[in-house]
Amino acid sequence: MGKSRLEAFSDGVIAIIITIMVLELRVPHGEDLGALAPLLPAFLSYVLSFVYVGIYWNNHHHLLHALEKGVTGTILWANLHLLFWLSLFPFATGWMGENEFAPLPSAAYGVVLLMAALAYWLLQRAIIAHDGPDSVLRRAVGGDWKGNLSPLLYVVAIASTFWSKWLAESIYVLVALVWLIPDRRIEHALQHKAR
Amino acid sequence: MGKSRLEAFSDGVIAIIITIMVLELRVPHGEDLGALAPLLPAFLSYVLSFVYVGIYWNNHHHLLHALEKGVTGTILWANLHLLFWLSLFPFATGWMGENEFAPLPSAAYGVVLLMAALAYWLLQRAIIAHDGPDSVLRRAVGGDWKGNLSPLLYVVAIASTFWSKWLAESIYVLVALVWLIPDRRIEHALQHKAR
Amino acid sequence: MGKSRLEAFSDGVIAIIITIMVLELRVPHGEDLGALAPLLPAFLSYVLSFVYVGIYWNNHHHLLHALEKGVTGTILWANLHLLFWLSLFPFATGWMGENEFAPLPSAAYGVVLLMAALAYWLLQRAIIAHDGPDSVLRRAVGGDWKGNLSPLLYVVAIASTFWSKWLAESIYVLVALVWLIPDRRIEHALQHKAR
Amino acid sequence: MGKSRLEAFSDGVIAIIITIMVLELRVPHGEDLGALAPLLPAFLSYVLSFVYVGIYWNNHHHLLHALEKGVTGTILWANLHLLFWLSLFPFATGWMGENEFAPLPSAAYGVVLLMAALAYWLLQRAIIAHDGPDSVLRRAVGGDWKGNLSPLLYVVAIASTFWSKWLAESIYVLVALVWLIPDRRIEHALQHKAR
Repeated sequence: MGKSRLEAFSDGVIAIIITIMVLELRVPHGEDLGALAPLLPAFLSYVLSFVYVGIYWNNHHHLLHALEKGVTGTILWANLHLLFWLSLFPFATGWMGENEFAPLPSAAYGVVLLMAALAYWLLQRAIIAHDGPDSVLRRAVGGDWKGNLSPLLYVVAIASTFWSKWLAESIYVLVALVWLIPDRRIEHALQHKAR
Repeated sequence: MGKSRLEAFSDGVIAIIITIMVLELRVPHGEDLGALAPLLPAFLSYVLSFVYVGIYWNNHHHLLHALEKGVTGTILWANLHLLFWLSLFPFATGWMGENEFAPLPSAAYGVVLLMAALAYWLLQRAIIAHDGPDSVLRRAVGGDWKGNLSPLLYVVAIASTFWSKWLAESIYVLVALVWLIPDRRIEHALQHKAR
Repeated sequence: MGKSRLEAFSDGVIAIIITIMVLELRVPHGEDLGALAPLLPAFLSYVLSFVYVGIYWNNHHHLLHALEKGVTGTILWANLHLLFWLSLFPFATGWMGENEFAPLPSAAYGVVLLMAALAYWLLQRAIIAHDGPDSVLRRAVGGDWKGNLSPLLYVVAIASTFWSKWLAESIYVLVALVWLIPDRRIEHALQHKAR
Repeated sequence: MGKSRLEAFSDGVIAIIITIMVLELRVPHGEDLGALAPLLPAFLSYVLSFVYVGIYWNNHHHLLHALEKGVTGTILWANLHLLFWLSLFPFATGWMGENEFAPLPSAAYGVVLLMAALAYWLLQRAIIAHDGPDSVLRRAVGGDWKGNLSPLLYVVAIASTFWSKWLAESIYVLVALVWLIPDRRIEHALQHKAR
């Protein structure tokens, strides 16, 4: 299994996920502002998830870029495992949006974020295990504070939904903003090796 | 991030957008002409949006083709920002079609067109900022009358929906026709450089 | 615009069309055979359309393969025009299937087939016009009896729906069977040139 | 028809299938656990199908990788035939999940699995017939116990649905686990030839 094919397939799945999410933004039946207004939570959820999937696409690219050796069965399934949790974004986004950020749907959204983060971490582990202790990726993620912090913040957000849904949403937005900055560590490590 | 991967991902998203729009053309329950007739506005909206997405796909290709240096984080997110607004086409098209070009849905359609145009302009700026003042793209878009005129016309169309919905629709059709002619300026500038 | 990008985009759109058609095969609410039985017409329509889209994908590939020179704006829009009519397959298939091959939906299905055939023919013309009278494609389609016969048969089928819906369906199946045999003429002409 | 294009198209279709399956996981209207609980069977069905489609994607890749000569019309249609049965996964998964693994939907799910397995076997035959008796693939699938056992187990599972639906589900899970281990025989035979 070539790396490029794994990349192309993952890109395809991510492109579909990011696009079909909009199908959860149901076309309203009325034609006035009163028909559009209830869609605002669904729209905001869509924006948030669009950004998250964009971040995953970007980071996933950098991750596979750092993969030096071929694709093993473990890497392949760790990758499909990540795609599985990403594929639940449309569902989690739709449920949270339709219920105006109600506690349980917001918590479920956080669980999907958390599981995707863990799946990403597992994929990273699988690649490092295959590439060896001197791999580009291992050095790059040495002090991965963003990768370590995010799951923690998701857990806090999930717990906080039962106390204040707005705190949970704020944490989701905050983590997205932290990640919006692309992971330059891997790029730096790659450039360092090239020298 | 390689240019070709950005292109492939964008192509994937645009291909999905242009295709799932047809899902808003709901299969009617009757089997006679009376069941088909109410779909005419939805069908016309679909045709218009299909042309617009086709134009964006075409122009986007020329735009990335002119990108001389690598993809930066800014370009990547400017591109995702454009894809975001394009992803709202199925929603805006469905809402306008289902309500037979009613004022507010027609205005919303115009807002999506306007935001996509601004996102395209921002992407163009991001590429020029990266490629530098002597870039192919900068010279190509020097007197970008189509790029400058379109947002203006969209604003006029949005405003006009509250006065006459047919004027707005006519403007949308007019702008599409103007853009149907591919942007040969970039091609010319590229050929000029090749000499 | 490179040929390979036009191919990749068309492949993407066709892959999505052939797959989302299955969404018109609505999951029934019951759990017994009585719930499944009414889906038979929808299933048969789906099979027929799957074969047709498969044929278009195959022939489209051979067509672009024969394209010797670059992609012009005319070819690009002739291609999008073909994709437009193919994108109506899910709708036409769903409507015909849901109404158990009723006359009007069956005629509408034939109209979509006819328009797609004409769009294919226009795309062929656009490529020949660009490649010139000595092009591989021109010689290949010299006596294009399948291409000439199909639209005629679609017209007959459309007319016949008002008399006997089964005659129309039989013609649709017959044309599909005729096309199932891939268009070896183009392959032969290409091989002939290679010698 | 180049092998790479057949691969890209198949990958596209499989990526769409694996992703639109999630659309059958309908967003519930309530916002409490009581709204989520009924979705558990649909979720479990989705997980199972996700794994199956992942397995098919993986094995399909190895199969085409072993294809030494070009793509014939027979191979092309054998491949589309496989994609056809895979495209019914969303429907079969949705029906089984919505009816909490009721006998008939579970049997229908098994029929789709069985037909996909037969289609895969036919594609394998078509490739071997084309590559000849000394082909890599032929030696690789010499003692294909997994390929021979699976259809048999599907038949047992289909029959068992009318006696115990849990037996059928267990068999589906068991076969998925057996296949989760990627088909290393083909890889070994390829490596053997390379030496």
